Amino acid sequence: MGLVLGIDPGSLITGYGIVDERDGDLHAVIFGVLEAGSRETLARRLLTIGQGLNALFDKYKPASVALEKTFYAKNVDSVTKLGQARGVCLYEAARAQVPVFEYAPTEIKSSLAGSGRASKDQVQFLVRTLLKLPAMEKFDMSDALALAIHHSRISTTKNKIREMELNP
Amino acid sequence: MGLVLGIDPGSLITGYGIVDERDGDLHAVIFGVLEAGSRETLARRLLTIGQGLNALFDKYKPASVALEKTFYAKNVDSVTKLGQARGVCLYEAARAQVPVFEYAPTEIKSSLAGSGRASKDQVQFLVRTLLKLPAMEKFDMSDALALAIHHSRISTTKNKIREMELNP
Repeated sequence: MGLVLGIDPGSLITGYGIVDERDGDLHAVIFGVLEAGSRETLARRLLTIGQGLNALFDKYKPASVALEKTFYAKNVDSVTKLGQARGVCLYEAARAQVPVFEYAPTEIKSSLAGSGRASKDQVQFLVRTLLKLPAMEKFDMSDALALAIHHSRISTTKNKIREMELNP
Repeated sequence: MGLVLGIDPGSLITGYGIVDERDGDLHAVIFGVLEAGSRETLARRLLTIGQGLNALFDKYKPASVALEKTFYAKNVDSVTKLGQARGVCLYEAARAQVPVFEYAPTEIKSSLAGSGRASKDQVQFLVRTLLKLPAMEKFDMSDALALAIHHSRISTTKNKIREMELNP
């Protein structure tokens, strides 16, 4: 099914994580954050996100992108800022011709932790356990990996169901 | 002072207009809309905006971009969609290394029509008169040209003040 790139977009920090599924096991290929620093201009911050993702698409050629869906926010300004960062993520995925699948945070938490109200700490602990990873600096990284894990699992299940249908 | 590219971003239709100032007179170089159709995917719509602007930056090499500032909205969903379109505009400007200047709609209306509450019809009429243009299909075009006109005027005034300071 190919590599899955999870992206947790943010106007200051965008988390990313690439997950690979081999023989039913999930592995982290790479993860990190794209961060330009809060003192940088908006243009420079969006460039950091877009050019960073562009390099990831080029190098790892992920088969799909799992992106965090947004539906709540503090105010118009923060929604606009987040929307701008998401726009750059969606645009770079489209330029790389990679399909994007969007998942709500509650769906990810339910899938990984069994509860839509799981804390970021719990999600990070489960991501680290599942991918056998050491401590992780930022929640943006574990949130991005959680998106990739969730999409990988869903796609694998769908493929299995398809196989069963083909070979009953 | 070079060409000014005005952009009125939208998730379905993005208006653009390039204005040139020669001997104190403003001229429209090109104007139009980037529109992918409401049935297209979000990815395809953002590609239309980004690749369209990229072509404009390449061909006309504008010295600056005048972008509509947003601060109100119906709901989170529409703010996110508009934010995504703005993100692509800002990103392409940053990739082309062209500085972006943001103006609120009320500022543009005050500057052109003398009132922050002028209608889109009035703005379009004034843009057409000022640039000696025939009828215009869409308000997105006249709004984009209005942004470019406003920025050109402001920059020209600033340059004149600077000249006066240098040669008192």
